[in-house]
Amino acid sequence: MRIQHSNMAATGWPECAKSLKGVILDLCGVLYDSGEGDGVAISGSAAAVKKLKESDLQLRFCTNETQATREKFVGKLQRLGFDISVSEVFPPAPAAIAVLKERGLRPHLLVHDGLLDEFDGVDKSNPNCVIIGDAAENFSYKNLNEAFTVLIGLEKPVLFSLGQGRYYKETDGLKLDVGVYMKALEYACDLKAEVIGKPSPTFFQSVLNDMGLQPHEVLMIGDDLVNDVGGAQRCGMKGVQVRTGKYRQIVSRDFSSC
Amino acid sequence: MRIQHSNMAATGWPECAKSLKGVILDLCGVLYDSGEGDGVAISGSAAAVKKLKESDLQLRFCTNETQATREKFVGKLQRLGFDISVSEVFPPAPAAIAVLKERGLRPHLLVHDGLLDEFDGVDKSNPNCVIIGDAAENFSYKNLNEAFTVLIGLEKPVLFSLGQGRYYKETDGLKLDVGVYMKALEYACDLKAEVIGKPSPTFFQSVLNDMGLQPHEVLMIGDDLVNDVGGAQRCGMKGVQVRTGKYRQIVSRDFSSC
Repeated sequence: MRIQHSNMAATGWPECAKSLKGVILDLCGVLYDSGEGDGVAISGSAAAVKKLKESDLQLRFCTNETQATREKFVGKLQRLGFDISVSEVFPPAPAAIAVLKERGLRPHLLVHDGLLDEFDGVDKSNPNCVIIGDAAENFSYKNLNEAFTVLIGLEKPVLFSLGQGRYYKETDGLKLDVGVYMKALEYACDLKAEVIGKPSPTFFQSVLNDMGLQPHEVLMIGDDLVNDVGGAQRCGMKGVQVRTGKYRQIVSRDFSSC
Repeated sequence: MRIQHSNMAATGWPECAKSLKGVILDLCGVLYDSGEGDGVAISGSAAAVKKLKESDLQLRFCTNETQATREKFVGKLQRLGFDISVSEVFPPAPAAIAVLKERGLRPHLLVHDGLLDEFDGVDKSNPNCVIIGDAAENFSYKNLNEAFTVLIGLEKPVLFSLGQGRYYKETDGLKLDVGVYMKALEYACDLKAEVIGKPSPTFFQSVLNDMGLQPHEVLMIGDDLVNDVGGAQRCGMKGVQVRTGKYRQIVSRDFSSC
């Protein structure tokens, strides 16, 4: 997290930052880079988290990670050297489970194997909605057809997409993200998916609720111009883009979510 | 092909039909239903083709079929009892090959195994465009990622989609069609695909050129309201929808191409 290299940090926190009461950090591309095993912590990021925790600011972590349960994901962050606990991390899957409960929905899941445990206690019989996450290799023709068949068979088809990223970078190259398959199913079924995760205002609001703060009191820091910075700004928060992760000087064709 | 059951046929050809010089027929859902093996001819359709051939009208067949080479596809139609020859049938793949030649493009292919032979003589080295067809099981995460990686690596990415259908019906259920994956790659790469096949005006025009006729002299008969009837009408042809194939009384959520 190289915000200390930006103009903002070079002259200390600007005037507007003095009214801040909380900070929300993105994770992948801000605190660490994903890759084989646990990935790699970005230089200086563990110290930055420590400094924020020692300050008067409230701190939360907001991510579109859907390849592991929250517990396993936080375990990885701790192994990378971060002082982070499960209750501080907000990924899409627990938010989705809350929505299912609230609306009495039973999902057909098209998600990564690593995420399945998160939905252990959820009734998945006779599904009346579909949830897709970053399913990676599970995005086979057969599995996408199955999700499509569930949707097209419903009187009022409901599709939840855990994020809407286009692609992300792994050590062995670029990988298609969940948003691509969201668009595929939207077209197949002539519907609009409900995005759970960044940049959904509902998702950001759930983090603000947990902090007990108003949007203008909170700063979101991420590497994604659309899903982190733009999403936060549309909610009334301040947004800052770091120069790590997917940040590029020229941002065209490079605004997926991680 | 039950057009004899429609109002139009019950009273013979209407006045406007007397100026017709040619007819273009869709195949799947009009002459036969696809399914295991060769599928099944629709009752009365072989006789209708015979009658048209005995008339003064020119006859061509226009299809978005991309799971087999033109030769194999026509062989199937002949086994089903139709008097149809290869030169009368217009599928997207040969049209795509003509476009490649014209524009000096070398494709990366994401198509059905049955279609590969059609591209035998085409230079596929160091690809500078991507062609997708109804690849069915070949639409794996790995293969879609490969097509994406080729596109995103090009300075000016070019994506050709052989048709833009949403889904089609097979004996064991609905199947996602090429249009769904076209939308996926369009979103991933932030581009607009070029559709080769119905309802592309260029594609219809190539059939008209072969007939040596003007659009207003030709009638298109198909089961798809968007890709057959609408596409033909936008080209200045007349369009008639049959009540076989994917035709439904209520057409919402049911306008994919076959």
